[in-house]
Amino acid sequence: MQIISKPEKLFKILKILKLKSKTIGFVPTMGALHEGHLSLIRQAKKENKIVVVSIFVNPKQFGPKEDLKSYPRPLSKDLAFCRKEKVDFIFLPKAKDIYGKNFSTYIQVEGLSSVLCGKARPGHFRGVATIVTKLFNLVHPDIAYLGMKDAQQLIIIKRMVKDLNIPVKIKAMPTVREADGLAISSRNMYLNKSEKLDALVLSRALNLAKLMIKNGARDSLSIVNRMKELIKQNKSVRIEYIEILDTETLRPLNRVIGNYLIVLAVRIGTTRLIDNFWGKLSR
Amino acid sequence: MQIISKPEKLFKILKILKLKSKTIGFVPTMGALHEGHLSLIRQAKKENKIVVVSIFVNPKQFGPKEDLKSYPRPLSKDLAFCRKEKVDFIFLPKAKDIYGKNFSTYIQVEGLSSVLCGKARPGHFRGVATIVTKLFNLVHPDIAYLGMKDAQQLIIIKRMVKDLNIPVKIKAMPTVREADGLAISSRNMYLNKSEKLDALVLSRALNLAKLMIKNGARDSLSIVNRMKELIKQNKSVRIEYIEILDTETLRPLNRVIGNYLIVLAVRIGTTRLIDNFWGKLSR
Repeated sequence: MQIISKPEKLFKILKILKLKSKTIGFVPTMGALHEGHLSLIRQAKKENKIVVVSIFVNPKQFGPKEDLKSYPRPLSKDLAFCRKEKVDFIFLPKAKDIYGKNFSTYIQVEGLSSVLCGKARPGHFRGVATIVTKLFNLVHPDIAYLGMKDAQQLIIIKRMVKDLNIPVKIKAMPTVREADGLAISSRNMYLNKSEKLDALVLSRALNLAKLMIKNGARDSLSIVNRMKELIKQNKSVRIEYIEILDTETLRPLNRVIGNYLIVLAVRIGTTRLIDNFWGKLSR
Repeated sequence: MQIISKPEKLFKILKILKLKSKTIGFVPTMGALHEGHLSLIRQAKKENKIVVVSIFVNPKQFGPKEDLKSYPRPLSKDLAFCRKEKVDFIFLPKAKDIYGKNFSTYIQVEGLSSVLCGKARPGHFRGVATIVTKLFNLVHPDIAYLGMKDAQQLIIIKRMVKDLNIPVKIKAMPTVREADGLAISSRNMYLNKSEKLDALVLSRALNLAKLMIKNGARDSLSIVNRMKELIKQNKSVRIEYIEILDTETLRPLNRVIGNYLIVLAVRIGTTRLIDNFWGKLSR
């Protein structure tokens, strides 16, 4: 496993491999690797000759009041984790080499970026779209692997790749959950024991919605209301949003139909958690 | 010479050539080709195995009151022109294949895009940056050729390429002028005979500035004022801006020093014309 910090060096090495027709699988991360990342890395290993993992806590996707400083950075653990999975290259850049002097170019995916998490986190998805484009240009992967847990991010990146003709295939991998149903997230480590119990309400609310839909419910409002009732039984959980949307446009669906996405975001203490369910009902 | 209209087809053909280590030179244009484009194409032919010219009047870089509809489209003349120069591929896409359903991704080069022509043409450089990125992703050229006449566009694209790690070299070619000094531009064909004579005042004002600097003038304001006096002698020319700027940041220079750029934009009748001079004074 080779650890590379300079963008130009990464680009040159991968370009040579690419000319030798080696396929490149890419897993962009902010580190604090967990079972979710593991599933991305293993899928990348299966499908490509070379696997590149980037570890970069991207300052441009954090708001001024967000957790950039406190975001977990367990680097040696992350590296051991990747070594075990036989990752070929770790890209571990410094912020100053990613955002040089007079940096001023940003990618905005309009509409999709200003709803849901984008409302609570203005500029967040602009930062995500910009860094992901930069990483794609440096790594030029054949396939990039993203988690379905960050649903809005995934939908925005897919839109961007299509709109800008970026030559990469995006592969989405299912959310990995703990045995009790909690979606695995780097931010779970902010939760204390009782908050972690409170957090189970997210997957429970999604399971309730799934069951209702299975039993024939189609009216989004009544499904969302039942989810809200369930969550509100727990006084320490504040709902930020619960919505049922079209998976491509993120437009609200009045009735559950086609490719739909149930998304929710809550705050527990100072921690913001998201979860979702991707479903499909034939029209 | 092969004419290709489908983006995916262009991408596939060029990808194969690229894997055979053929170098690709790219000249992005809006058609209405003239001697300025010719110098770009000839330079591209000199330095690359394959030359690609795109012809696409990009709707996203025209404002609602601008000349999108009337912009010249002498297609058969353009194709003959390229054939004569032994261009290998013409990319001639349809707008609907470039901007598909739900298109929503834009590239903004902040700061650089909102000054000078960006003030008079809000959204213009966002449209330029977006289409150029798309074209670079489709063509993946080794070198892209741009004219120095569109100085702000050139500086914005260079900034964007650096900021987004786009793997292309930008080569800037000098402005081509008619014998009388008029910078060649596709929009010159909007001018009638007397307007074309009026338009000579642009290069004359730049020549005056060059002479003043050669003779030791360094104070930007007094140089600009002398240029304005000269232009104002011609009542049918309205000045939009005249500025002396740093060539990288486009920040105004109080004193002419280092890599400087003298830019001017005027209106003659309904036609907007720009011209500029790139200079260098050792610090």
